Amino acid sequence: MFINEFCRKRLRNRIKRFVENQVFQNFILAVIILNSILLGVMTYPQIMASFGDVMHLICNICVGIFTVEIVLKLYAYGRKFFKSGWNNFDFIIVLISLVPTAGPFSSFRVFRILRALRALRLITQLDKLRVIVQAIVDSIPNVAWASGLLLIIFYIFSIMGTTLFAADFPDWFGSIGKSMYTLFQVMTLESWSMGIARPVIALHSYAWVYFVSFILVSSFIVMNVIVGVVVNAISEISADIKKEKEAVKIRNHKQDLSTEFMKLKEQMDVVSKLIEAQNNSKTGYMK
Amino acid sequence: MFINEFCRKRLRNRIKRFVENQVFQNFILAVIILNSILLGVMTYPQIMASFGDVMHLICNICVGIFTVEIVLKLYAYGRKFFKSGWNNFDFIIVLISLVPTAGPFSSFRVFRILRALRALRLITQLDKLRVIVQAIVDSIPNVAWASGLLLIIFYIFSIMGTTLFAADFPDWFGSIGKSMYTLFQVMTLESWSMGIARPVIALHSYAWVYFVSFILVSSFIVMNVIVGVVVNAISEISADIKKEKEAVKIRNHKQDLSTEFMKLKEQMDVVSKLIEAQNNSKTGYMK
Amino acid sequence: MFINEFCRKRLRNRIKRFVENQVFQNFILAVIILNSILLGVMTYPQIMASFGDVMHLICNICVGIFTVEIVLKLYAYGRKFFKSGWNNFDFIIVLISLVPTAGPFSSFRVFRILRALRALRLITQLDKLRVIVQAIVDSIPNVAWASGLLLIIFYIFSIMGTTLFAADFPDWFGSIGKSMYTLFQVMTLESWSMGIARPVIALHSYAWVYFVSFILVSSFIVMNVIVGVVVNAISEISADIKKEKEAVKIRNHKQDLSTEFMKLKEQMDVVSKLIEAQNNSKTGYMK
Amino acid sequence: MFINEFCRKRLRNRIKRFVENQVFQNFILAVIILNSILLGVMTYPQIMASFGDVMHLICNICVGIFTVEIVLKLYAYGRKFFKSGWNNFDFIIVLISLVPTAGPFSSFRVFRILRALRALRLITQLDKLRVIVQAIVDSIPNVAWASGLLLIIFYIFSIMGTTLFAADFPDWFGSIGKSMYTLFQVMTLESWSMGIARPVIALHSYAWVYFVSFILVSSFIVMNVIVGVVVNAISEISADIKKEKEAVKIRNHKQDLSTEFMKLKEQMDVVSKLIEAQNNSKTGYMK
Repeated sequence: MFINEFCRKRLRNRIKRFVENQVFQNFILAVIILNSILLGVMTYPQIMASFGDVMHLICNICVGIFTVEIVLKLYAYGRKFFKSGWNNFDFIIVLISLVPTAGPFSSFRVFRILRALRALRLITQLDKLRVIVQAIVDSIPNVAWASGLLLIIFYIFSIMGTTLFAADFPDWFGSIGKSMYTLFQVMTLESWSMGIARPVIALHSYAWVYFVSFILVSSFIVMNVIVGVVVNAISEISADIKKEKEAVKIRNHKQDLSTEFMKLKEQMDVVSKLIEAQNNSKTGYMK
Repeated sequence: MFINEFCRKRLRNRIKRFVENQVFQNFILAVIILNSILLGVMTYPQIMASFGDVMHLICNICVGIFTVEIVLKLYAYGRKFFKSGWNNFDFIIVLISLVPTAGPFSSFRVFRILRALRALRLITQLDKLRVIVQAIVDSIPNVAWASGLLLIIFYIFSIMGTTLFAADFPDWFGSIGKSMYTLFQVMTLESWSMGIARPVIALHSYAWVYFVSFILVSSFIVMNVIVGVVVNAISEISADIKKEKEAVKIRNHKQDLSTEFMKLKEQMDVVSKLIEAQNNSKTGYMK
Repeated sequence: MFINEFCRKRLRNRIKRFVENQVFQNFILAVIILNSILLGVMTYPQIMASFGDVMHLICNICVGIFTVEIVLKLYAYGRKFFKSGWNNFDFIIVLISLVPTAGPFSSFRVFRILRALRALRLITQLDKLRVIVQAIVDSIPNVAWASGLLLIIFYIFSIMGTTLFAADFPDWFGSIGKSMYTLFQVMTLESWSMGIARPVIALHSYAWVYFVSFILVSSFIVMNVIVGVVVNAISEISADIKKEKEAVKIRNHKQDLSTEFMKLKEQMDVVSKLIEAQNNSKTGYMK
Repeated sequence: MFINEFCRKRLRNRIKRFVENQVFQNFILAVIILNSILLGVMTYPQIMASFGDVMHLICNICVGIFTVEIVLKLYAYGRKFFKSGWNNFDFIIVLISLVPTAGPFSSFRVFRILRALRALRLITQLDKLRVIVQAIVDSIPNVAWASGLLLIIFYIFSIMGTTLFAADFPDWFGSIGKSMYTLFQVMTLESWSMGIARPVIALHSYAWVYFVSFILVSSFIVMNVIVGVVVNAISEISADIKKEKEAVKIRNHKQDLSTEFMKLKEQMDVVSKLIEAQNNSKTGYMK
């Protein structure tokens, strides 16, 4: 099978126009929504008992359409396809969908629940959602180091907690992992006192220092993270507004000044001409 | 019954002046407050046993006054009445009040509880409350898409939760709806760990990933929504302030410059006149 | 007993200087701290058993000192004393302290616990705390109307809750008051689901609408209140900064301009003088 | 042993260069991370049973390295060492590590848990974390006085709580300390109603005033603290931005004006010269 370079290029452009077509994108959006609804419906055992086969069939057709879409895009854009984060995102989700839902793996629940991620493709298809997710993703670096700090605090307190309370409360502080989970619960303030701290204090009277200091430290760090995000967002926006306003103002200002200067200069020119005229007349007189 | 066009118009204007009269509006406000208090009092069975009939009578009179008010307004403003959101709001509340509280429907509690909404008319009558509610309603579009994103996350996690835990915890994850309610509870951090997550983890040891990741993702989105609202509000206000300040500054600035220029120009004029005078004298001399 | 007007005035000024003296104020601060510590110590029954009489004596001496202080201030300042909110605050607290702690009223716990309010006098004595409290009090008007709105929402939902759930859950929704307390608990998100909503939903399956909508509405209003406070505080501060900066800038700007104008004017004057000199010479020549 | 002044200085400089060397700092960072991981691993009894001796050995070697590092730094910097807060921080942590983990004190758990603090040295070694911690520490003074106010409110309410409820609820309000802990729990909104307030209200019907007023007052103060921190952070940042922008603007503005003035002055000069030339020619003519 021989396709020369020209034909290939023409085919690519055609496919490009096809996948970028609004009608095609709306169709894909519709398939995503249909698939998402189906995935929800498929959790009802009564419905699955009667219509299970139809459901699975439609579901597989949807996956087929997604696969064709990605293959077309891969062919149309080539390597450039992977330069967009959203394309990678779509690619991975479709790849996960292709893991056989029947067969030796189907018994693993984890593959079945990963199908639900297909609904995330709604985000790639809707611009407004993409902007929000982009904003959230962009705010992660600001939060990353503070999260690192929080992790160190978590680690130190979980070592302490495990050392102190592992023997008496193996469910809550039995290992570093269990302690970290318990501390996460304490940080969210969920049942930290009635559920965790009071029973612990009943055996270890000094334990209130541990819990109260952890809550104060962790909430202080979280507060600083949120304040940081707010301040960052405001400073960015205000910088934008200011830059814009600044430009308008300077432009206006320049215009004001220049019109005034223009008038002044014109008057100046009149004066100059008068003097020169006078000079000329004089020199004319003198000659 | 024949009323000619002119009479109709005059009547309309009269009614308009009547319903826009401050005394009439205060009277309606008083009726709303009286009705609201009554609705509260009517929840006490002992009081209802002795004064039930009187209560119901006053309540019906109040609804009658509201109905007359709306009919008058409808006649006075015609179609324009429905252009104001607040009028529509009042109209719907009065319409709901007219559903018979006695008779075949009175057994449905839902109609009885909807009467409580009449207290919302306080908002339409008090300007300060209207401003606040308007501000809250105006902030909804900013929050709408982020809420959509949150809904998608909720949907995905509830599909996963139902798939994984429905068999073992039918009360919490028995269906998509139950899972979404449970996830809402988890998002508000209420008993998420001691009440829900720890029992689930006891059976499915990997479930901590599910709960912790849901809490992190949902609180991150909510944080971004709040930051967005704060930043939006600030940027709006600061834009207002700046615009104002800008105007004042430019005005001041112009005045400063123009007075200086005025002086300069006057001096310039003096120079011009002197030169002209000189020229004239010279030409006079020359002739 | 005759004191003439002059003597009275002199005495007043002396007392004024005395109560405004730093040493006296520090002494009062020390008495307040001593009294506050004592009130804490007096809650320990073992200590009271052995040292109860001494404690009561010192406590009464403290109250005596406070009374003398207020009487002196009242004499020194006269009516002006009540113009300061903080003086009124001190006056009321001392007045409450004078209610007999022994005698017919002493059995009422409420008078005994009001003694604890004396520690609030620390706020009046420490400037930094006064500033913070003033800021908090000043932010109340911004919050007042939004709180009014929240109260209306509370009232409507408590009427609904009482109508719907009073029969089945008399402890939580038995009356308007009980419903409002329960709704306050729900607003703080404390045990709202596992403690309140799930048992209610078990009997009334539609009740989730009631609870979820209440949480969404109330948290939306609270969010708007907080955003309002933040935005208000920022706009105030930024207005202050801007005003200051503006003044500096305009001043600088004026100076820049005026120096330039000064030079220009001087040059202008030179030109004028030259022309006039020329004119004069000419007229001199002409004569 | 005689070392002359010159040799000492040279040695110091060498050590200085050595401890400030990036390779050495990375080595210390690696030791800190290794030690932190070890401290976590050492909480697992099974691992300790088999590899306990090796673990303790490596741990002691790490402490030895830290000690040598601090001693070298102390020698290199002398008194200046203690001028940096971070050095003091490192010094105290290493000092705590030197408390014998075996011997008469080893039975005290408190010394064993303090070893976990060594992981905090990660903060001193990583610049990004130092900046965040510095920012958090810098925000403490802004929060300090408000915390003082909160403490006074806590104290007053705990005196009241102890006076009112100590007899009936000794576990929650038995003493000032217990009341303060309970109030801290109430402030974090953890089980405040279902756990604490409802049982108390069952015996003391007026107690809802106590709990609701405490929650309102404390959350109002906390809100004001957070708003204060946000506003402070924004005003600082915006002041920085403004200062910068201001400088740029004034510079630009000056340039705009000065170029215009330059042109005007040049024209002015031309005029002056013309007039002078005229004058000269006239005077030449006159002579």
